[in-house]
Amino acid sequence: MSLSVDLNADLGEGVGDDAAMLEVVTSANIACGFHAGTPSELLATCRAAADAGTRVGAQVSYPDKAGFGRRFMEIAPDDLAADVLYQIGALDAMARAAGTALAYVKPHGALYNALVHHEAQADAVINAVAQYDSQLSVMGLPGSEVLRRARRAGLSVITEAFADRAYTADGTLVPRSQPGAVLTDSAQIADRVVTLVRTGTLAAVDATTIGVDAQSVCLHGDTPGAVEHARAVAAALREAGIEVVAPRHQAG
Amino acid sequence: MSLSVDLNADLGEGVGDDAAMLEVVTSANIACGFHAGTPSELLATCRAAADAGTRVGAQVSYPDKAGFGRRFMEIAPDDLAADVLYQIGALDAMARAAGTALAYVKPHGALYNALVHHEAQADAVINAVAQYDSQLSVMGLPGSEVLRRARRAGLSVITEAFADRAYTADGTLVPRSQPGAVLTDSAQIADRVVTLVRTGTLAAVDATTIGVDAQSVCLHGDTPGAVEHARAVAAALREAGIEVVAPRHQAG
Amino acid sequence: MSLSVDLNADLGEGVGDDAAMLEVVTSANIACGFHAGTPSELLATCRAAADAGTRVGAQVSYPDKAGFGRRFMEIAPDDLAADVLYQIGALDAMARAAGTALAYVKPHGALYNALVHHEAQADAVINAVAQYDSQLSVMGLPGSEVLRRARRAGLSVITEAFADRAYTADGTLVPRSQPGAVLTDSAQIADRVVTLVRTGTLAAVDATTIGVDAQSVCLHGDTPGAVEHARAVAAALREAGIEVVAPRHQAG
Amino acid sequence: MSLSVDLNADLGEGVGDDAAMLEVVTSANIACGFHAGTPSELLATCRAAADAGTRVGAQVSYPDKAGFGRRFMEIAPDDLAADVLYQIGALDAMARAAGTALAYVKPHGALYNALVHHEAQADAVINAVAQYDSQLSVMGLPGSEVLRRARRAGLSVITEAFADRAYTADGTLVPRSQPGAVLTDSAQIADRVVTLVRTGTLAAVDATTIGVDAQSVCLHGDTPGAVEHARAVAAALREAGIEVVAPRHQAG
Repeated sequence: MSLSVDLNADLGEGVGDDAAMLEVVTSANIACGFHAGTPSELLATCRAAADAGTRVGAQVSYPDKAGFGRRFMEIAPDDLAADVLYQIGALDAMARAAGTALAYVKPHGALYNALVHHEAQADAVINAVAQYDSQLSVMGLPGSEVLRRARRAGLSVITEAFADRAYTADGTLVPRSQPGAVLTDSAQIADRVVTLVRTGTLAAVDATTIGVDAQSVCLHGDTPGAVEHARAVAAALREAGIEVVAPRHQAG
Repeated sequence: MSLSVDLNADLGEGVGDDAAMLEVVTSANIACGFHAGTPSELLATCRAAADAGTRVGAQVSYPDKAGFGRRFMEIAPDDLAADVLYQIGALDAMARAAGTALAYVKPHGALYNALVHHEAQADAVINAVAQYDSQLSVMGLPGSEVLRRARRAGLSVITEAFADRAYTADGTLVPRSQPGAVLTDSAQIADRVVTLVRTGTLAAVDATTIGVDAQSVCLHGDTPGAVEHARAVAAALREAGIEVVAPRHQAG
Repeated sequence: MSLSVDLNADLGEGVGDDAAMLEVVTSANIACGFHAGTPSELLATCRAAADAGTRVGAQVSYPDKAGFGRRFMEIAPDDLAADVLYQIGALDAMARAAGTALAYVKPHGALYNALVHHEAQADAVINAVAQYDSQLSVMGLPGSEVLRRARRAGLSVITEAFADRAYTADGTLVPRSQPGAVLTDSAQIADRVVTLVRTGTLAAVDATTIGVDAQSVCLHGDTPGAVEHARAVAAALREAGIEVVAPRHQAG
Repeated sequence: MSLSVDLNADLGEGVGDDAAMLEVVTSANIACGFHAGTPSELLATCRAAADAGTRVGAQVSYPDKAGFGRRFMEIAPDDLAADVLYQIGALDAMARAAGTALAYVKPHGALYNALVHHEAQADAVINAVAQYDSQLSVMGLPGSEVLRRARRAGLSVITEAFADRAYTADGTLVPRSQPGAVLTDSAQIADRVVTLVRTGTLAAVDATTIGVDAQSVCLHGDTPGAVEHARAVAAALREAGIEVVAPRHQAG
């Protein structure tokens, strides 16, 4: 049986080398204008993804352009659901004009982090996704509230791991404020991804081996060395005979 | 043969009595967030329109919330097309979540005025509408560039007149800066609308009679006496045996 | 010795009857554009306040126009300090163009509530105020972190009470979600304010008498009956021989 | 008598290498948040300029972040004046917190271009500047309406030329849409600046020599090779014995 994995990255945020990342990833998380991106930029990014044959996801965010969506906002669930619906509708229009269509939704920044535990906001986001199109998948952290609720709502989910982030023995990410939180060696990053796909495990910071459920691996596009890391990961997967491919749609 | 007319008004702008207007109009022009309205407000307005059985149009605008969309912006056509596509997609998501769907697009404010003559911007808007859904109609001023282009693109169009505005002998609106530009007497406004539907003519400011092609009549929702005027128009049409009904869709 | 009190209200938010409120209040809390208000509206409000001889305060907010500044945001202290500095500078320019100048700063909405307890955000706001002008006062809830820090930084403070809000026996406001949280009877509201100024006490919801330290009383400008309540309060104070006057500046 | 010239560049727009440009320029045009920049970024840029001993100017713009201030907006003069006042006040608060203060105002993008001819908008901007602080200078194109009005209002002016732009025989800039509009050779750019300072003339595209009145030379910070060009200009001026220094303030 052949192994495969999806590679995803954030695009259309006006940072990083989108064209180079599109040569590597199979899933493009595209901003929806609430944390980054003008309609014109979003449309151009959708077109680039469509041209590359990369499937498109809506990276929905809190309405916080000044903070790049990185600040928690105590938004009432009904308001958050409307914000998410608005963003999905807007980006899907872009995707369709570009000849493709939204395949999934991935929360961004502070919203991504909040939805790991915040039940009311997770419900709001899932309701909005399900209301728009129950064929959309939801990408997120394995074990998060948002994926639990997505499954319960009959949506398919895509679990993801982070190629360049250190994990604790509990399976959570080492906070960026701590030393060693972000890996910077391309070869090490590529090795970890290959091991992850082959074994479903990663080495945590304390050297213990932890299980990580990941159908997709997130490659950061805006860090120093991002493109190198991405190419190293793709090359290592190829050498290991692991196919890089977007997940086939299936109910969660 | 029975006469009929559509009545439209701007809703969801946070001004005026939307509930009262929804009892009268058959077409609700709903803001898309670029000149007014939060996603939450837009969704609520779509729901109110859906509950009232009123069809929903996207009132697309320049990206100018500070100016309520009332200031001309020299936007490049490609950027304007992306702006319009974004707004239509976002509002259609709202409309669908409310159990209805967009039926038409009506440009707002300074964009409305620009599209009477500005060919490049008119092309941009029509391209965006056609790209999103060729079943959408376009509402605008008879004789405007945007309607000319809409027809050429195979879109259906809805011509409109303004119930409470004075017209010049040339068939253009008397500028708001001039005295008498806005009619304030409910009975007079109602009479004009009945005459317009019956005869296709209006009395211009110089008392000449001019032909005005109008499938829909716009009722302002945010002026003093707006609700009274609207009710007077509806009552007068009823008495005159004129049906108030949204236009049947037909290719332009 | 004669008694006196300051009356304050939020103006320039595009809701309520600013002109009527300016006839009553001695302190005008003016929005700075982050939760409400265009520069043009802010300038007009500053001019109206200056014409009425009412002193002007900057109502600083989280950057959240969509949410009217009513949603907590987890902003880093340095970013919040910059946001507050920006708002104070902008509004002071307006106030000076109108022939007056900022006298105080009052946090708005969710920021107001956060600063009761959030030490890092309270520090950020006080640092920004002190950095801009150490002669500015800070208006807030007695006992709040923000006022504690203001005093420590050598700023003068203005404690305030809410004329139309019920208080618990602990001296906190009854949450709006509970019945009876907002008083609606003008006579009762006016009586409470007079008692408060005379005795420094209010009747709590459980009928116990609590001490409330308030140099200023906040009148809501955007609730039903707001203007009536304001006029009733002003009339009752006049009859009771209590002077309505802005606080004299003094170090906290 | 020794020759001198001011060098200016746009900073704080989140593009280009601000630190490198600050080593060269004597005037830093800092965005005010209307076309680019968060308060936090603006404050950091003011601090960097203050640390470098570079004087600070407010780069005021139309309220058009989506378009980076590059699109003409038909704003009513009173609204534009309020917008400019708001931006100047906000940025001056930043500058003062950074230990410096605004020295001048330079319109940005489409506003810069509009003020060459648009009398009503030029009046609005000059009124706002004069109202805020009559000691502020105004930087702009020689011969423009905005400088004419600045002088008439008693403000000092700073005329500027563009180091890397080709000029027509009429003394206007060759539009960017035409080939050769932007110079890309560092040595050529540096030579032109030295000649300009020494002789007050430039070679136009048709090889005629034209007079250009420029107290300051604008270096673009966001084009390819920007830092190289800037360093080449600075080195060439040094070799030519021309001092790079901010203009001494003097009434226009």
